[in-house]
Amino acid sequence: MKTLLVALGKRSYPIYIGSGLLSRPELFKKHIKSRQVIVITNTTIAPIYLDTVLKNLDDYVIEYLVLPDGEQYKTLDSVTQIFDKLLACKFSRNATLIALGGGVIGDMGGFAAACYQRGIAFLQIPTTLLAQVDSSVGGKTGVNHPLGKNMIGAFYQPQCVIADADVLDTLDERQLSAGLAEVIKYGLIRDAGFFNWLEQNIDLLLARDKSALAYAIEHSCKNKAEIVAEDETETGVRATLNLGHTFGHAIETGVGYGEYLHGEAVAIGTCLAADLSRRHAWLTDVDVERIIALFKHSRLPVVPPAQLDAGRFLELMAVDKKNIDGKIRLILLKKIGLATLPVDVDRERLELTLKTYGRK
Amino acid sequence: MKTLLVALGKRSYPIYIGSGLLSRPELFKKHIKSRQVIVITNTTIAPIYLDTVLKNLDDYVIEYLVLPDGEQYKTLDSVTQIFDKLLACKFSRNATLIALGGGVIGDMGGFAAACYQRGIAFLQIPTTLLAQVDSSVGGKTGVNHPLGKNMIGAFYQPQCVIADADVLDTLDERQLSAGLAEVIKYGLIRDAGFFNWLEQNIDLLLARDKSALAYAIEHSCKNKAEIVAEDETETGVRATLNLGHTFGHAIETGVGYGEYLHGEAVAIGTCLAADLSRRHAWLTDVDVERIIALFKHSRLPVVPPAQLDAGRFLELMAVDKKNIDGKIRLILLKKIGLATLPVDVDRERLELTLKTYGRK
Repeated sequence: MKTLLVALGKRSYPIYIGSGLLSRPELFKKHIKSRQVIVITNTTIAPIYLDTVLKNLDDYVIEYLVLPDGEQYKTLDSVTQIFDKLLACKFSRNATLIALGGGVIGDMGGFAAACYQRGIAFLQIPTTLLAQVDSSVGGKTGVNHPLGKNMIGAFYQPQCVIADADVLDTLDERQLSAGLAEVIKYGLIRDAGFFNWLEQNIDLLLARDKSALAYAIEHSCKNKAEIVAEDETETGVRATLNLGHTFGHAIETGVGYGEYLHGEAVAIGTCLAADLSRRHAWLTDVDVERIIALFKHSRLPVVPPAQLDAGRFLELMAVDKKNIDGKIRLILLKKIGLATLPVDVDRERLELTLKTYGRK
Repeated sequence: MKTLLVALGKRSYPIYIGSGLLSRPELFKKHIKSRQVIVITNTTIAPIYLDTVLKNLDDYVIEYLVLPDGEQYKTLDSVTQIFDKLLACKFSRNATLIALGGGVIGDMGGFAAACYQRGIAFLQIPTTLLAQVDSSVGGKTGVNHPLGKNMIGAFYQPQCVIADADVLDTLDERQLSAGLAEVIKYGLIRDAGFFNWLEQNIDLLLARDKSALAYAIEHSCKNKAEIVAEDETETGVRATLNLGHTFGHAIETGVGYGEYLHGEAVAIGTCLAADLSRRHAWLTDVDVERIIALFKHSRLPVVPPAQLDAGRFLELMAVDKKNIDGKIRLILLKKIGLATLPVDVDRERLELTLKTYGRK
């Protein structure tokens, strides 16, 4: 087992990465300070891993809640179900919530923990590659709104993250690829060497080679932990983690939550961001081709849905947390391995990208 | 104008107390860092003060939302209306929210500000005595749940509090008295001298004597600011501000939100807490009589509703943020001017109080 630290002063916490971690009660118990524990999970994960987790905690007052699976359920209504359950059980402010699932469960569980009685402790047990390398680390929690992704939420850090690589064995192919989109992101924004490594090892990752996956997870979490430690609430460098996300969120919101996996939308969004970076003469044609090729090789979509034309994209992108006073701001790439901070985009270039990239 | 500081490091902010403050644009503008401003208010306050506030900000992109008035509307649904409005207006993370109203508007506006895009700036403009002396100061935000008061929320500090004493001219009598309940609380928990002053000056306060009210507001805010500076997230002394509140919340939830004003329920709850403190031989009979007399004199109820019997009280009190692992914990009084920290209550004594105090 490897342990990485997210260094946030009093709110610091460990990320445990390794095999068989779901069956190690001491890892859980170390971070649970109370008798009352609730596990939040979904209909996909519950039949596979819920019992294993519950078994670790049979000497606690333990409850669980199984929510439907999918981005379309990442809503205030689902979070309300968590509140209802906590209150029906009369759980106190010293209770602990365990989020056992992918990014949707982690984001909602974390947000429920942030708000229940103004904050209870929570543990992240990510069960998808995407959640292990990205969404479970760093304390961004929240839900979607019909008008925008992740528009309601809180910065709220967990007590620990337990990333058990074994759970990836049961992950379907589409989810594995979606996770790779965020892995590739770290290479693009700050780690050219990692990007090169990914180009050489992508087949091993797709074949779920344990040691390649472990390397990718650890390397991704290390990048994420460093960024979050530097800028917890996204006043600066943390925004670079949003490469491709403004386009991606527009796709998810525009097409309907759940249609694309988050990682799939991010892959397309990153290709759009790369195309726009090329129009700024920051990336070369060859750079953009390499980026698109790596996403394609990872079995990810690289072309935006035909139903979203440039006008609709712009409308959807007007709602984004990086925008200031309504102006669209994006993360772009100066080169492979170096992202910009949010830049006010040149409207003409943005429209060119939206009208031409991937369009017939 | 007096200025008090709530000293919370980077999150420090001023409380402005005085006359005519609603018409001083510079007070507002000093704390608004962006172009986009939304005012959240209610149907009682909007016709009286909304225009005055909007006039201060006519050079901003300004929107407003008028919510129904009353504790029964302090819900996630109302907060969702605020999110809908903010998103419909495409407001950014650098927008500012102004909460113009009593405790309900302040708590919901603050919570919406805490969660919208994971946190936007907000200003508190309390328009009731209760909000001026208590709920607008200290960053407790949130909403009620059918099973418990203030069960969903966040600690989230405003940029400033603007307490304009003139708004109390339009406050109805019942609301004025409700505010006095929280004023009296400060005397009881940490300021015996202030309690004595209140006993002598209660008639002036009820007659809305400007200088008596100003003294009471300033003194209350000073007490609150000191406590919050010492313990922002209620791990210790801040809990003393909850004197009478566990009983009070049980009344509000049990009878139905909006039936009692919060201050009215707190008055009854504080009398119950005083009775229980007497059973611990901390307060004397004379102390308890003085406390009840001051609430009565303030035109506040001092007897719990007949419909809530001891059993129902205990059930409702089982959901409280001070409880640990389901055990009821209360703030009691060691003497007038000195509160305990949360104590595990002796069940027998608690039942005696619930069965006998104020019962025929």
